[in-house]
Amino acid sequence: MQAATYTGNGAITLSEAEPQAPGAGQVQIAVVYTGICGTDLHVLHGAMDARVTFPAVLGHEMSGVIAALGDGVTDWAVGDHVTVMPLDWCGDCPACRAGNQHICQNLNFIGIDSPGSLQASWTVPADTLVRLPADLRLDYAALVEPSAVAVHDVRRSGLVPGEKVVVIGGGPIGVLIATTARHFGGEVVVIELDATRRAAIADLGFTVLDPIAVDQVEWVTEWTAGAGADVVFEVSGAASAVLGATALAKVRGRLVVVAIHPTPRPIDLQRLFWRELTIIGARVYERVDFETAVELVAAGVIPASLLITRIEPLDRTAAAFAALGAGDALKILIDCQAAPTAPDDLSALTSTPAGASK
Amino acid sequence: MQAATYTGNGAITLSEAEPQAPGAGQVQIAVVYTGICGTDLHVLHGAMDARVTFPAVLGHEMSGVIAALGDGVTDWAVGDHVTVMPLDWCGDCPACRAGNQHICQNLNFIGIDSPGSLQASWTVPADTLVRLPADLRLDYAALVEPSAVAVHDVRRSGLVPGEKVVVIGGGPIGVLIATTARHFGGEVVVIELDATRRAAIADLGFTVLDPIAVDQVEWVTEWTAGAGADVVFEVSGAASAVLGATALAKVRGRLVVVAIHPTPRPIDLQRLFWRELTIIGARVYERVDFETAVELVAAGVIPASLLITRIEPLDRTAAAFAALGAGDALKILIDCQAAPTAPDDLSALTSTPAGASK
Ligand SMILES: [Zn+2]
Ligand SMILES: [Zn+2]
Ligand SMILES: [Zn+2]
Ligand SMILES: [Zn+2]
Repeated sequence: MQAATYTGNGAITLSEAEPQAPGAGQVQIAVVYTGICGTDLHVLHGAMDARVTFPAVLGHEMSGVIAALGDGVTDWAVGDHVTVMPLDWCGDCPACRAGNQHICQNLNFIGIDSPGSLQASWTVPADTLVRLPADLRLDYAALVEPSAVAVHDVRRSGLVPGEKVVVIGGGPIGVLIATTARHFGGEVVVIELDATRRAAIADLGFTVLDPIAVDQVEWVTEWTAGAGADVVFEVSGAASAVLGATALAKVRGRLVVVAIHPTPRPIDLQRLFWRELTIIGARVYERVDFETAVELVAAGVIPASLLITRIEPLDRTAAAFAALGAGDALKILIDCQAAPTAPDDLSALTSTPAGASK
Repeated sequence: MQAATYTGNGAITLSEAEPQAPGAGQVQIAVVYTGICGTDLHVLHGAMDARVTFPAVLGHEMSGVIAALGDGVTDWAVGDHVTVMPLDWCGDCPACRAGNQHICQNLNFIGIDSPGSLQASWTVPADTLVRLPADLRLDYAALVEPSAVAVHDVRRSGLVPGEKVVVIGGGPIGVLIATTARHFGGEVVVIELDATRRAAIADLGFTVLDPIAVDQVEWVTEWTAGAGADVVFEVSGAASAVLGATALAKVRGRLVVVAIHPTPRPIDLQRLFWRELTIIGARVYERVDFETAVELVAAGVIPASLLITRIEPLDRTAAAFAALGAGDALKILIDCQAAPTAPDDLSALTSTPAGASK
C-alpha cells in the first residue's frame, strides 16, 4: 500500500508501506478519510523536525473502519466505524498521575511522534478508538478531531450560557470554536481579516468583524454595554491579536490562547492586573471532548460542508498541503482508499465534491 | 494640622491642611501610622499624575482611632481602633453589578484618586472602615492593607494545602505573600536577588534562592520531583522574571501576576499552551481579604517587626520616600501624630525603633 510521508525540507512524497498486523491490544483500521490541518503544515515547515522520525507518515484527523483486531481487544468488532484520539500517554509522569494524561509530560502524539493516518491501513492502540455512529458520514467524521479541540477550548473557558464571546481568527479552528461556543449558549462574534472567510462565517449566522474597518475595542464595548467580553479566544496566532485581546475582555474576563505562538509574545499585564483577567492555555482534548465532538458532528452543529473545501486522493497529498499553505482551502480531506490517480491527471488539482459520502 | 503632599515632579512637601468634619455617613479618624509602599513611590515618580489632584495627600496603609462620627453612622464609636479599606466604588458599572466592586470600572482608590492618610486627621466613608482588635499594636496594624493584598493574591491563586509555591521577588509584598501562602498550607520557596533580603527571608524559615547562583528551573524541577510548582507568584516586576516564570509551573499550574508591569511583557505562550497553564491577574482586595489580614496580623503570622524597618514623624516623609526609593528599607511607617521634629534634627534621618508601640 502507499503512505504519504514527510521526508524533510518541506517535501511530502508517496512511499510504499507495509500494512501492520495488529499486536495485542491493537486494532488495524482501514483509513477512509484523513484531514490535513495547521499542525501538519507546521510539521511540513520543519517546526517539529526534532520530534518526527523520517520518513514520517502524518495525519491525525481521520475516520475509518476496523479491519482487524489484535489479541485481547474485546469491545470492538471488524466493521465498526471509528475515529482515533491520537494521544498515547506514559501514565507515570506527574501530569498523568495528577489526572492530566492528555498533556502527559512524555506524550506521544500519534501522527507526529509516531506514524499517522495518511495511509490506507493504520494500526493503533485500541484504547485510542472513539466510536462513530454507523450512520454518520465518514467524511464529516474526519472533523471530529478538530471539533474535539474546539470543545476542549470552550470547556477550558468555563463558558456559561448567555456569555458574550469573541473569537479572534476565523480559520477552521476559529469556526469550530465559534459554532461550539454558540451551541453551548454563548453569544459569539468572530474577528477575521479575510473577506471570503468573513462571508462564509456570516453565512453561518455569526456577526463577523473586519478588524481593519472596525475599532474592535469600541465595538465590543458597545456590544457589551460597557463591560467587555466574558470570553476571548485567540485563534489567529498573530502577535498583535494577543496584545490587543486583553482590551476586549471584561473585568474578571477570560482569554483562552488556542493558537500556537512559537516565540514569546508581548502581553498587556497592566490590563491583566487592572481587570483581574485570566489567561488560559488549552491544548488538545480529553476523551469527554472527543465524545462531545462526535455528538456535535452527528447533530449537524459542526458546519462540515462549509469546512471541507474538497476531497483529494492520497497521491495528491502534496498538492493538498500546498493549497492549504497558500490559504486556498479551509480543510482538505485525503481519501486514503482512493484508487491511484491516472498519470495524466496527476499534474492538475481536480476536486472531488465535498458532499461525496462513503 | 500638617499633611504630607505630593506636589508633582517627585516632590513631597508638608502643607497646612484643615481637618474635615465628618459629613453624613462619614467618620473622622485620628491617623496614628501610615505605611509607605511601592504604589506611593510610583505616584511620586509621576506614573499616576493623570489621576491625582495637586497637592495630593498620599497614604493608604494606615491605622488610627475614630475621633468623630458623622450623621447616620451607627456601628462605630469614638475611640474605636480602625483601619480603612481604601476603595470607593460606583456601585453601578458592569463590574460592580457583577459583584466585583473592588475592581469597579470607576474605582476611586482613596489615597491616590482622593486624599489619603498622610495627615493627622482623615475623613472617610464609614463603610470603608475595618475594625481592629483593641489590643492590636497600631504600628503592626498599619500592615493590614498590604497583608490584605497578599491574602487576596493567595486566594486568587486557588492555593490548596500541600501545594508547592514559588514567590519571585522578596520585597514587602513578596514576604507577605510567602508568609500568607505558608499559613494556608503551601510549601514556599522565595527567589530574591538581594543578599540582605535573602538573609532576612531565610530567618523567617523560608528556603530562598539566589537566581544568579542557582538554576531556578532545575531547582524547582528537582524540588517538585519533575512536576513543576503548583503556583508561581510574580512579584518582582522584572520582564525577565515574567518570561521565566512559566517555566517554573507544573502542568495546569497557575501563575499569579502581582507586580505592576507598566509596559507589555513577553510571555512564553508556547509554554502556556503546552502545559495548559493559567495566568491570573490580582488587584487590591475584597472585604473578606481585609478581615483575614487583620486576623493574620493579630495572630503574629505577618512578620511585622521584620517588615517595619523604622518609624518616622510626618515631617520626615520626604526622606522616608527617598530611603524607600533607594532600597534602604522594607517598610517605613509615618507617625502622623508625632510632634514636629526639632529644626536641628530635620536634616538627619534618625530612626525610631520599630518596636515602639502606641
Ligand atoms: Zn489537527
Ligand atoms: Zn505521562
Ligand atoms: Zn500600598
Ligand atoms: Zn463600579
